[in-house]
Amino acid sequence: MTDDTAENKASNAMWGGRFAAGPDAIMEAINASIGFDQRLYAQDIRGSRAHAAMLAAQGIITDKDAEAIGEGLITVLSEIEAGDFPFSTALEDIHMNVEARLKEIVGEPAGRLHTARSRNDQVATDFRLWVREQCDAAITGLDALIRAALGRAEEGADWVMPGFTHLQTAQPVTFGHHMMAYVEMFARDKSRFEDARKRMNECPLGAAALAGTGFPIDRHATAAALGFDRPMANSLDAVSDRDFALEFLSASSICAVHLSRLAEELVIWSSAQFRFVAMSDKWSTGSSIMPQKRNPDAAELIRAKIGRILGASVALFTVMKGLPLAYSKDMQEDKEQVFDAADNLMLALAAMAGMISDMVVNADKLEAAASGGFSTATDLADWLVREAGLPFRDAHHVTGSLVAMAEEKGCDLPDLSLDEMQSVNAAITESVFDVLGVHNSVASRQSYGGTAPDQVRAQVARWKDLLG
Amino acid sequence: MTDDTAENKASNAMWGGRFAAGPDAIMEAINASIGFDQRLYAQDIRGSRAHAAMLAAQGIITDKDAEAIGEGLITVLSEIEAGDFPFSTALEDIHMNVEARLKEIVGEPAGRLHTARSRNDQVATDFRLWVREQCDAAITGLDALIRAALGRAEEGADWVMPGFTHLQTAQPVTFGHHMMAYVEMFARDKSRFEDARKRMNECPLGAAALAGTGFPIDRHATAAALGFDRPMANSLDAVSDRDFALEFLSASSICAVHLSRLAEELVIWSSAQFRFVAMSDKWSTGSSIMPQKRNPDAAELIRAKIGRILGASVALFTVMKGLPLAYSKDMQEDKEQVFDAADNLMLALAAMAGMISDMVVNADKLEAAASGGFSTATDLADWLVREAGLPFRDAHHVTGSLVAMAEEKGCDLPDLSLDEMQSVNAAITESVFDVLGVHNSVASRQSYGGTAPDQVRAQVARWKDLLG
Amino acid sequence: MTDDTAENKASNAMWGGRFAAGPDAIMEAINASIGFDQRLYAQDIRGSRAHAAMLAAQGIITDKDAEAIGEGLITVLSEIEAGDFPFSTALEDIHMNVEARLKEIVGEPAGRLHTARSRNDQVATDFRLWVREQCDAAITGLDALIRAALGRAEEGADWVMPGFTHLQTAQPVTFGHHMMAYVEMFARDKSRFEDARKRMNECPLGAAALAGTGFPIDRHATAAALGFDRPMANSLDAVSDRDFALEFLSASSICAVHLSRLAEELVIWSSAQFRFVAMSDKWSTGSSIMPQKRNPDAAELIRAKIGRILGASVALFTVMKGLPLAYSKDMQEDKEQVFDAADNLMLALAAMAGMISDMVVNADKLEAAASGGFSTATDLADWLVREAGLPFRDAHHVTGSLVAMAEEKGCDLPDLSLDEMQSVNAAITESVFDVLGVHNSVASRQSYGGTAPDQVRAQVARWKDLLG
Amino acid sequence: MTDDTAENKASNAMWGGRFAAGPDAIMEAINASIGFDQRLYAQDIRGSRAHAAMLAAQGIITDKDAEAIGEGLITVLSEIEAGDFPFSTALEDIHMNVEARLKEIVGEPAGRLHTARSRNDQVATDFRLWVREQCDAAITGLDALIRAALGRAEEGADWVMPGFTHLQTAQPVTFGHHMMAYVEMFARDKSRFEDARKRMNECPLGAAALAGTGFPIDRHATAAALGFDRPMANSLDAVSDRDFALEFLSASSICAVHLSRLAEELVIWSSAQFRFVAMSDKWSTGSSIMPQKRNPDAAELIRAKIGRILGASVALFTVMKGLPLAYSKDMQEDKEQVFDAADNLMLALAAMAGMISDMVVNADKLEAAASGGFSTATDLADWLVREAGLPFRDAHHVTGSLVAMAEEKGCDLPDLSLDEMQSVNAAITESVFDVLGVHNSVASRQSYGGTAPDQVRAQVARWKDLLG
Repeated sequence: MTDDTAENKASNAMWGGRFAAGPDAIMEAINASIGFDQRLYAQDIRGSRAHAAMLAAQGIITDKDAEAIGEGLITVLSEIEAGDFPFSTALEDIHMNVEARLKEIVGEPAGRLHTARSRNDQVATDFRLWVREQCDAAITGLDALIRAALGRAEEGADWVMPGFTHLQTAQPVTFGHHMMAYVEMFARDKSRFEDARKRMNECPLGAAALAGTGFPIDRHATAAALGFDRPMANSLDAVSDRDFALEFLSASSICAVHLSRLAEELVIWSSAQFRFVAMSDKWSTGSSIMPQKRNPDAAELIRAKIGRILGASVALFTVMKGLPLAYSKDMQEDKEQVFDAADNLMLALAAMAGMISDMVVNADKLEAAASGGFSTATDLADWLVREAGLPFRDAHHVTGSLVAMAEEKGCDLPDLSLDEMQSVNAAITESVFDVLGVHNSVASRQSYGGTAPDQVRAQVARWKDLLG
Repeated sequence: MTDDTAENKASNAMWGGRFAAGPDAIMEAINASIGFDQRLYAQDIRGSRAHAAMLAAQGIITDKDAEAIGEGLITVLSEIEAGDFPFSTALEDIHMNVEARLKEIVGEPAGRLHTARSRNDQVATDFRLWVREQCDAAITGLDALIRAALGRAEEGADWVMPGFTHLQTAQPVTFGHHMMAYVEMFARDKSRFEDARKRMNECPLGAAALAGTGFPIDRHATAAALGFDRPMANSLDAVSDRDFALEFLSASSICAVHLSRLAEELVIWSSAQFRFVAMSDKWSTGSSIMPQKRNPDAAELIRAKIGRILGASVALFTVMKGLPLAYSKDMQEDKEQVFDAADNLMLALAAMAGMISDMVVNADKLEAAASGGFSTATDLADWLVREAGLPFRDAHHVTGSLVAMAEEKGCDLPDLSLDEMQSVNAAITESVFDVLGVHNSVASRQSYGGTAPDQVRAQVARWKDLLG
Repeated sequence: MTDDTAENKASNAMWGGRFAAGPDAIMEAINASIGFDQRLYAQDIRGSRAHAAMLAAQGIITDKDAEAIGEGLITVLSEIEAGDFPFSTALEDIHMNVEARLKEIVGEPAGRLHTARSRNDQVATDFRLWVREQCDAAITGLDALIRAALGRAEEGADWVMPGFTHLQTAQPVTFGHHMMAYVEMFARDKSRFEDARKRMNECPLGAAALAGTGFPIDRHATAAALGFDRPMANSLDAVSDRDFALEFLSASSICAVHLSRLAEELVIWSSAQFRFVAMSDKWSTGSSIMPQKRNPDAAELIRAKIGRILGASVALFTVMKGLPLAYSKDMQEDKEQVFDAADNLMLALAAMAGMISDMVVNADKLEAAASGGFSTATDLADWLVREAGLPFRDAHHVTGSLVAMAEEKGCDLPDLSLDEMQSVNAAITESVFDVLGVHNSVASRQSYGGTAPDQVRAQVARWKDLLG
Repeated sequence: MTDDTAENKASNAMWGGRFAAGPDAIMEAINASIGFDQRLYAQDIRGSRAHAAMLAAQGIITDKDAEAIGEGLITVLSEIEAGDFPFSTALEDIHMNVEARLKEIVGEPAGRLHTARSRNDQVATDFRLWVREQCDAAITGLDALIRAALGRAEEGADWVMPGFTHLQTAQPVTFGHHMMAYVEMFARDKSRFEDARKRMNECPLGAAALAGTGFPIDRHATAAALGFDRPMANSLDAVSDRDFALEFLSASSICAVHLSRLAEELVIWSSAQFRFVAMSDKWSTGSSIMPQKRNPDAAELIRAKIGRILGASVALFTVMKGLPLAYSKDMQEDKEQVFDAADNLMLALAAMAGMISDMVVNADKLEAAASGGFSTATDLADWLVREAGLPFRDAHHVTGSLVAMAEEKGCDLPDLSLDEMQSVNAAITESVFDVLGVHNSVASRQSYGGTAPDQVRAQVARWKDLLG
């Protein structure tokens, strides 16, 4: 007999034990949100301060009460930030925890804070403020990453490397050009977070439970005080909307796809077979006895982040599916998903920026790889069409013959002599060598957005300008 | 023995049969895209015409060739639209099908169309044009739906109904207010498609295989000819980017969540227990022998659409995860997902617009439901705070007592006499009746965006103005 | 000016602050797993004890060393369970935390524990043990839920209620029958967890880093000691497989769908319009001033759980997509998803069992609802086919006429007299009343698995027998 | 001005045009399922034949009617298989199409086929039969793939290659061992489909609309006739359950993850940098002018399939979330997802089996790659522990010194002389060379499931035995 049965029993008992206290323990475990929504403390207090100030300005509560509330809330804030605040699960959520403590501090006026407000518009406001800050954080993080990529792009504007399709060398490109592709992607990500921020920047506060209120509140004032562009225009929508979270998660998922693509490339490029780049010790782990083994841990973890971010997105879409208006408790499941996605996105952005900043790029390896496989065969064919006026089909035929000749001779295309070339097609002139060889190839691709070093440098300059 | 084994064998043989022809049949089945990408024929021909015109303008091909190509493409277009075009699986995709037919029609010049272009930038352009049109279609569809909802909102601006939280009556609202919540949601959807359209409106054409080209092309000209704001700035990004599809799917998923919420409400409201609304015969199915049974089929199907749209989104996110630049064949899996999501979204928008336009709303049932459950108790409590100056806690206590009194008497709050009320708290005055009763309750909620009919009508007017 | 800018700056600074310490802080944050994998402490220690015992039995380490290790590990276990263990982020994961502490306790022998083992097979073993326990927990939780449903089914075996399609009354069924549908679903869930447990019950230990080992270990012994059926048969597979987690998540997702369906029904049934059931105070929240409002919070939270469980599933599927063998750091993202899904599934099962056990079922409301809408019209039509020998089409025609007659008279079908019925079709006899009326209707549906109370009781008995 | 506006208008008109016919066209488009459910024709006819035979056996219809129905259905079947059947969208689904045609062929008896049956149990039965066949197809496809992998494993049982972690060489393994890891994975997939098939093998037929029936049907007879193990035990569950589809999709998703991992390896291994394998022309595409470029198209498409299969899974989970019993029209969205996932899974299995069967494995490249990076350093360290009795820490220290010595000399570990080794640690003996060098290394890993060629061959033999 193994000790399995005994240990399993213990484990099950422990699990059962948790719920043995009965329904109350289960209900508290499934119902209380203070375990995660305490992260909203700053937003909650900020919203309450704006609300109290407005109530006083409108004459709904006295200035004295408002002042007491305002000061009390600052005390609560400092207690929480000092780590002295005794969060209570019995008080369920951050709103009630703050309110209860406020009452202890300032007494009766605390009760007036909740005038013309409900937990429904309060939580909607808090969470929206939090997500808005995450948009700002993502924008900041993307900015740093873009600058890092720009730096590497400028440095490697004329380092030739293989341009891959199907992970097979297709045509030579420059390392700078490759980096600039990611600059474009991350810049689109940035603009998505900017759009999302703008769209979510409307204030739910004052929607009360769901119907608005009969108190003469000034929703424009609280909206302005909290940095919102305007109050939301429908109180039912204000408490039941989670679009801002869904859009944040969607933008995060697209960004995480980009990160996963770059991370995959870094993992492959770090392999012994590629050796295009080497991650610094800061972002990799080694082996004490295999000196050349350096595991690109950070790159792999970044590659994986799309998993949990897309998962969080699916989670919230699924939760929101088919929910009647206005508020349903299902919506309490929104926060943990967004918290987790945001934390991991910011972390991945920071790690990627750090990693590409200090990785060692092996320009020699890149160039050697680019040169293999007759990677400039298309340049030759294009030249035959463009300069020698051959029809496409003939140009391909001639190119094929020249590649075969080079292969037989064990050399690359630019190593063939003009005579040899002319023996295949007499229209070939000396100027063909201007497009052969990987450096000539990339230099010739001068179309807008092409891989020519000049084009790459122009794009680097454009982005530097834009970023200021 | 059953006939199961025999039939299963037959079935397996059939399945096996399909692949019995061996690798070629399997490879064709997995590799060819013409089965679905033929939907891109109009975009493909449009892109080719723009490309040919630019090549001629730049002197890369002759005007005569360009003219032949242009006319030939129009012939191909008309053949396809007439249903006369013989699509060939052996030719794999729409691009090669069109090109092969063009060659048959115009001969040699057809070969010059592919100058300075590759299938990579061609397919990226075609698909982007298609998705851009779908953004326009979604905007059009949302517009119609918003107008339908606005119409019902205006009609029911003062029809009182229960405002639900947790599907329990919380406070009375108006039907118009409820409809306007969806106007806000669908308007956000519209703005998301507008943003997506704007962001995707850059032209990949001219990126060639991935590196740009040495031909003196004018990418700004083709971009303008195809209605793009500008050419994409990085040729690698141009052929490897599928952000526009991911963003379209994300926006569609959020929109589908909104549709599912409204659909769920319509299903619940159509039940015998609610009878708030009745779907017209056009959108429901009946029973020949149960005259009162009317199944809200269209509403249920709309509710389900979030499933396949979110599924399509997950599919493409998963496909794109970790793909190295620039083009990988994995990306061929992008189209079917977007086609299916777009088709179903447009259909759901049209069905929902039709359905809410002609559904019968039972205003009496709505009002009766709103009146139950002492739904104006919070109005009473708020009045006690606001008008009688009671602290919140006392106001709640007094309200509780009055509700208990009404419950005992089997009446609603506004049915209590002033005397009875004053017996509980002497500060109550005649004006309390101004907020009791569901009509008074909603009328009193005059905060911006609140449920008061005036507020609702103001929002209706604002939206009518905006939509023009 | 608002205080927005200032506060945002503070927030960004805080965020930035976290990473200001530079790469080391970022790498530690993204790389260390001790924050979550400390949950595996019991499994880790159990696996190490089995490994040490085997090493000694095989003569690879001395009995004395094995004894020291075994006792040291028990000390570590008790320290952790007492909450005295100082977890260190610098030591990255639970394995290194335990090992480092073991070394402090027992000195040199601790170093020998890692003989013929690597972190790769160790973590695979630990996590597999944990997931296996969760299968057991799910089975236990489902068992309790099934018993709760069985109890309610037996009680309500002849309570008539509407059988819904499209949330419209289609035919009468019994409440017991409805409950038994869920018994079937949850029993399938149970069998899925049983299958998953069986399939995952193979031991990775001894696979070492990925290639197996040259030490003369006995993998069958460690497998047996840990309750596994056998060692895994391929060492690469052993360290790279996460099927067990994916299968657990898939089974959990299906189970969560079932929970969401029952929860949705409970939410709808709790509405003022249905009042079929009332959740007890333990599982709902009320309003101090609206005595009839009882929000089914627990049911809504359970309904939402499919979101995060499906999300966790998508997360791990996405992480595992396209990972080369054997171990990649991406796989470190597996645990949090499974932990969260398992915790929430167990909680939802327990809450649902509690909730259906003590909910009040309003049998009168059920029956009244079942009787509306001529819900026994199909019984009448079937009787006409079966007993009077009418062709289907005629039977439907006759039924339609009788329903119309009843509707006109404002009564239900069984309230028509035999004369009245015979005036429509002379073949109708007294025995028609045996199938009219909801009780007769359900009693007549005696096909296997049908809704007749006898059938329902037979199924209850069968399940009680099976569960023992 | 561009022609954009005009063309867009055309496109919108076309889209609008489709719906211009009004609600009827929209409702037909969203409601009719015949466009996809015609794939169920064989299952539908088979189920109807079994039902008719049972009705006759039970005396519910006459033998003559049953015979007419049976023969008529065979006629319908042959019409459909001959491609002569006029499917009608107005008749909505496959069931009504078949039934209407049957009526044309056999007249009145056709009407009796629907006795004691409804579309709800009929469609549940048809779809379940279809999915059951797909389980069989997946099992067959996996079988072929496993045999292909076994063949390559046997062939390469002692071809040494790098065992990767983090895509870095960790230790040498054999190619056969690597292939056998996939045999284990695909065998688990097979057992999952077997379990799913077993669990779904219960018959819904006879559940009628949802409540069972009053006709004296024999559900055990129809279940047996259709190859089911038994009838489903609850009629509500029978018509509302889609677990079988969800479980099929989950098993398919796990299998698709495995395929994606192997496909990723094949893509990487096909790169110019690895050249471990070369896909045959059948599964790749080349370039007319770049002879060494061979794009692993099939591998990339297989890698992508997890996208659509996981997407289909998410789609159906989302559709089923929160659906009340018994049937809702939402469930009509189930089929397209499963059809698409099944088709693509079978295709991917067939393509993968073909691809690994005829790929060329470059054993020399594998061995050369395995030898780099001091890949047997851990073997040396283990030897020092095992044979020389060094403590782990010392063994690591000595190994590090020897690796440094070899690195300095520019040679690999086995190239050091015994003298050189003993200069670092005197306990080293001649037998150390038994574990150095990649062949010795793999040969020494004799633990069960390890990479030693003997172990690999033993596993190959075990699997051959099991597969028969």
